[in-house]
Parts: sequence; C-alpha cells; structure tokens
Amino acid sequence: MIRDTNKWLIFQHRFQQIIQLSDDTIGQNRLVYSPNWVAAQTALIQFGQQIGLTAMVDNYGNVYLDLPGKDDRVIATGSHIDTVINGGKYDGLYGVLGGLQAVDELKERFGTPQHTLRLISFSEEEGSRFKATFSGSKYYALHQSVKDLTDSEGVSFEHARSTAVSHLQSLNDVIVKRPVIPDSFTELHIEQGPRLVTSHDQIGLVSGIVGQRRYTITVQGQSNHAGTTPMNNRHDALQTAVILIAALERRAHELSDSLTFTVGQLTVTPNVSNVIPGTVHFTVDIRHADDSVLNHFEQIINERLTQVADPLTKVTAKRYVKDLPATFDSTLLSQNQQLAEQLGLSARVMVSGAGHDSYVMSQVSPTTMIFVPSEGGISHAPNELTHPADLKAGINLLMASLHAQAY
Amino acid sequence: MIRDTNKWLIFQHRFQQIIQLSDDTIGQNRLVYSPNWVAAQTALIQFGQQIGLTAMVDNYGNVYLDLPGKDDRVIATGSHIDTVINGGKYDGLYGVLGGLQAVDELKERFGTPQHTLRLISFSEEEGSRFKATFSGSKYYALHQSVKDLTDSEGVSFEHARSTAVSHLQSLNDVIVKRPVIPDSFTELHIEQGPRLVTSHDQIGLVSGIVGQRRYTITVQGQSNHAGTTPMNNRHDALQTAVILIAALERRAHELSDSLTFTVGQLTVTPNVSNVIPGTVHFTVDIRHADDSVLNHFEQIINERLTQVADPLTKVTAKRYVKDLPATFDSTLLSQNQQLAEQLGLSARVMVSGAGHDSYVMSQVSPTTMIFVPSEGGISHAPNELTHPADLKAGINLLMASLHAQAY
Repeated sequence: MIRDTNKWLIFQHRFQQIIQLSDDTIGQNRLVYSPNWVAAQTALIQFGQQIGLTAMVDNYGNVYLDLPGKDDRVIATGSHIDTVINGGKYDGLYGVLGGLQAVDELKERFGTPQHTLRLISFSEEEGSRFKATFSGSKYYALHQSVKDLTDSEGVSFEHARSTAVSHLQSLNDVIVKRPVIPDSFTELHIEQGPRLVTSHDQIGLVSGIVGQRRYTITVQGQSNHAGTTPMNNRHDALQTAVILIAALERRAHELSDSLTFTVGQLTVTPNVSNVIPGTVHFTVDIRHADDSVLNHFEQIINERLTQVADPLTKVTAKRYVKDLPATFDSTLLSQNQQLAEQLGLSARVMVSGAGHDSYVMSQVSPTTMIFVPSEGGISHAPNELTHPADLKAGINLLMASLHAQAY
Repeated sequence: MIRDTNKWLIFQHRFQQIIQLSDDTIGQNRLVYSPNWVAAQTALIQFGQQIGLTAMVDNYGNVYLDLPGKDDRVIATGSHIDTVINGGKYDGLYGVLGGLQAVDELKERFGTPQHTLRLISFSEEEGSRFKATFSGSKYYALHQSVKDLTDSEGVSFEHARSTAVSHLQSLNDVIVKRPVIPDSFTELHIEQGPRLVTSHDQIGLVSGIVGQRRYTITVQGQSNHAGTTPMNNRHDALQTAVILIAALERRAHELSDSLTFTVGQLTVTPNVSNVIPGTVHFTVDIRHADDSVLNHFEQIINERLTQVADPLTKVTAKRYVKDLPATFDSTLLSQNQQLAEQLGLSARVMVSGAGHDSYVMSQVSPTTMIFVPSEGGISHAPNELTHPADLKAGINLLMASLHAQAY
C-alpha cells in the first residue's frame, strides 16, 4: 500500500518525467515509435533498472521489467505507453507506472516473490499513428505482425519500428527478448467513462470487454430540386435515413439497456440546402457483453432495411467490424472483490465498453482489469483527469492483487 | 403558330448554335460574363438584327430586341441566357429563343404591332458564378446593383461585367440603353419539376411563385466515447437532430400538402464512427404560395426547438432567407387559359416552386409565365429534356398571348 508520502512522491516524480516529454504540444503525443515514445520507454527502462528489475525489449518495442521469483511462473501487470493524438495524461501511462509502483513497493516490503513479477509497457494500443491497434500485445501474445502500413506522412511501419526499437535494444543491460506468456495478467486503467463517478465507486472490477460490430449503411434515393418537386414525388435519402436511425435507436433501447448504439458518422450528397439529398451514408456502432444480443440486433437491422416505405429508395448495410466479447478470469475477479473489501474500497463489477490490451491478453492468460474513475467520463482529451486519491486506491488494490498472486 | 417545318428548323438552328458554344464541357456552362456567355448574347443580337429588330444592351449586359409598335406601350417576353455549372439545354435559353421565335413569326405574319414587342435576354438568374441571383432582372426592373462580389477564382463582378458588357455594347448598331419598364411581361420556361409530366398536361399556367424561407438549425450536444458512455448518459446531437427532423417533416405534411420541406444539408462533428456526435448543423428549406403558412410553420419550428427532451442539448434556429410569395397577373392568366383552350392544349394552373426572373418583373409589371413539361422532372443537369412537341406547344401559346396583347 502507498503508505507514506515519500512513495507517493516517487510515483508523481516518474509520472511528471514522462508527461513532460510532450510539453510543447497540446495534450500528450506519444505516438508509437516517435521521439517522445522512445524517450518514454527509455525513461521507463531506467526507472526499472534503478530499482533492480531486469529489462527486456522485444522486436516491437514492448518493454518487460522482471522481478525474478523463486519458480518459473510469471504474474504480469502493465498497460500501453502510447497515446492518441492530443491525448490525456492517464490513459495507458497510469497502468504502466502504477504497475511499476506496485512491483517497486512489493520488492521493498516482501523481497523475492514466489513467482516472477513482470511489468509490461506495451508499445502500441491506440492505433493513432498506423491503422493497426493493439500491435504491441498482439505481437507479444498472439505473435501477430503488422503488414505494409504507413503513417500520415508516408513513413512505413517497418522503418519507424526498426529505428525506434534498435535504439531501445542497444541501451545498457537491456536483453533483446520476447519472454514467455505469463500465468496471469492484471491491467490497471482509467475507466474512460462516467459510470464510477456516477455510482460514487472508487474501483471498477472488469468482468470482460463488450463485443463490437460496425456497419456502413447506404441510403440511395434521388437528388432533386427542393422547390419544384412535390412532397409526394420525392425519394429523399435523408428523410429515409432519419426515420431509420430513430427507429433503430428505439429498437436498441427496447432490446437491452446495456446495448450501446451510436451513429457517429453521417454524410449527405450533394449536401446543398436547396437540393433534396440523393445519397446518405452513415455508420452504426453497437456493443454488448453478450454476442447473442449483437446477433439479435444485426437481425433487427437487416429486417428494418427491408421495411423502408419508398420502393424507389434502396437501403443496404455492410458490416466492417466484428469483435467478439471477451470474458475475463472469474477467480481473479472474486479475489479482487475480496481484496477491495479488505482495503475498504467501494468497488463495482463492470464490463468495459472500450477495447484494451487485456482483450488480447485474455486470449492467452487468465486476465483481470482494475478501473479507476475518470472525472466527467472524459478521455482521449487533454482534460482527462483522475483524482490522486483514486490513483492511489487503484495502485493499492493492484499491489494487493499482485501480492496475493505472486507471494 | 409554328405551322411549317421551315420555321421549326430555324428555331432548332438558332438553338444548336447557342448550345454548341459549350461543346467542350459537361452540359451547358454559360456563366455570366464568361466567354461562352459573351458569344451567346452576341449570337442573339445578330439573330435579332437579321430579322430587323432593334438591339439594346444595358450596363449589366441584358439584351433587349424590340419590334417597334405604333404607340409607346411595350409588351415584353424573355428569360435568362445564363446557366448553372454543368447545366441543361433548356433552362432559360428556351424562353429566350422561344420568345425570339414568337416575335419573328408575329412580325412576318402580322407586320407592325400596335404596341412594341420586346424580347429580353437577362444577363444572369442562376447565381452560379457570383453569390447574387437575378442580377439581370433586378438591375433592369429594380435598379439594384451587385456589390463587392468575386467569383471562385477571385475575379471581381465589376471587372468581369465591364469587360464582357463593353464587348456587347461595341457591336454594330447596338444601342447602349436600359429601356423603360414594359406594360407586361410573359416568360416562357421549362417547369423543372414533374407535375406536368405526372398530370399529362402540355402547358402550365403559372399563377405565382412560392414564398421561401431557409434556416440553419444547430444542435449542440456533447461529444463522447461510443463504447464507454452508457445510453442514459449521452447528449448525442445526431439523435436529437434525427428526431427533430422526422417530427418537423411530419408537421409540415399535416399543415399543408403543398408546403415543401427539405433538409438538404447536414453536417456532423466530429463525424467519426466510434465517437458520439457533439454538434450537428442542418438546413431547413420551406416553400409555400401563402406566406401565412410559412409564418405558421416558422412558429412550429420555434416551438419544437423548446421541446427537446435532453436539457443538456441546446437547439437554435437562424433564418437566413425570407422571400415573400409572388402573385402573377390574373387577367393575363385568364387570357392564357382561353388561348390554350382555343389552341387545343391541355393546360393546368400551377404555382412555381422555383424562383424566376418573373418573380422580379412581377414587382413592376403585370406578369405571367408559361411552363412546358420537364421529362422526369429533371433540371440543372445535362440530361434536362423537353420533347419537341412540348417546345412547339409552349412557343405557340406564347405567340398567341403576345398577339392578343400587342396587336
């Protein structure tokens, strides 16, 4: 437990050192393999080496800091070091430095653990530089690589990766290695939503990650003159779209309170005030912890498209994302519930609506996540904030969990 | 009446000469004061001079071709020579060359009229080069000028105008003059909508032009993460917008069958599939022949904005167009009804949903309009089409009307 002011100051000092690397930009900008990113992973390796941890770097730039145990089992924690463009201070970095803090204190208080304790700083999760997400954890856990991508300035993933990673791998006492898969993975992360703030809980115990599907829906009507075309002679793509969107939102609400339904993108053609819209494209993003609910709603979408009143307006849907829900380890979840109660922390079990490295790790290891509250539910923005008391509470619970697992 | 093949060939020949000026582009492109436009007005002046009409050009490039009568009353006809970008062959040009054809034949068959017959080719009606519409008829009838406008390439209205107009005014036997306001104005035009085709009528007798109002409506909600924000915690600007648009469309339908309601433009911010929309802007275009209906609907819009369910989503409306309806001359309308009957043409009285030079002319002279059918209701596009039989029918009725008025 972060019991004294001194320990808290060390955490704050490390945190400040990393976030100051982005000082000349709006918010945080640690895009994978950028100079800021290299500086952050370098600083982290040094933090680990200063407290006697073994540093490893694999070929994707994932950093592993091990406190070797008495046997060959491995208990891992960690999160991602990268950020979105103009991101906040806590997304990812909190789990990396919070994990380091926990390992640091456990080592000081309890010495060598039974099982190896490993802090992982994943290279990339956000997909904000290249159109690939979770490339760090996918490389580690699933041995998946990124193919033929370039960033917005035309730099290839391969070129960016090899330059940045070779810098990290050439640091003093760094072992070039992709270590074995751990026996468990615990990720500490900010919630990025408003549920903990709303329910006045300090801790979210994450039971899984929602499944997600995305669709592009195209409404093809007929563009025409807004003055000379009588109302009963129109094939207005936008009128069909608004009725469809309102109906689907209603159906989503009826189906399940926890089904999220978002039309985030909508474009009108030709998009001129005195011309009846000929074509509308819009996206539908649906998420739920139970894949059968998503199946059911997909059926509702397909049925609804055939019910458009105007026979001359064609509506088609194309699914372009289908991610299955992830269910995390129930034993680790129960253990965390008990530990939170012992620590006097008010905790609720919840499903994450966003993807995380834990989504990937749960495919190879028993996995659990700990959430702390995000003020106003704001994330991916410079004003992302978690209060110090909540930051401490999350680290304390992680420390208790790692202690229970590794000692 | 276009009785013989020879007369019809002359009309077709003149028509081909003008539309061939745009041969290297998609559709017709006679933007005001462009080289194509100068060539078209020049050709028209020559057509008029060849059949003995007096040519005048004013300082905005409106062309007037007079067949002088025995007294100083003036019976005018005409339309505009300019087009939209990638426009059709008939919008505007049909009324100019149809009017010339009518004056030509009346002169040949009946000689000098009692009152002067005037064909007007207005310089500009479409607003497709500069953000000003009806600048030709407004200069002639209302003495209004265009202030400080430039086209998309930075050329000023003044520079374009003076260069093009001085060319026309320096042609042989052209009188530089803005002549007196006529004692009546009759405009021949394509319908640009589907009503005549739908009702199988050859002629539309236009009783007036709808009033028109346009609004920008802004919905200000809160942008947020599509996965982590529960449905009951959202301030989704697009969901508010679609419910509002659907409700307003329903109310418009209830209020009057002849009220047109169009949301032609809609933009979403940030417009990303996994982000809840924070802001939506959309336009509303409403038109009706009775201004009190527009007043009533404006009240409905304002009331509806206050009924948005989410108190944290703000909706505001700003009116940026308010054009009063125009009522055309009832005597000329009755006369045209009788003449159409005598000619065996099926005609219906209708209100125009689009603006025309007649809208401006009706403010200073008794005005009437004759519509002919537009195939498929298509206009402002290269595939704009009116069949030859309908083109002839319109010219014949115009000729009968001018004969009745001027001889």
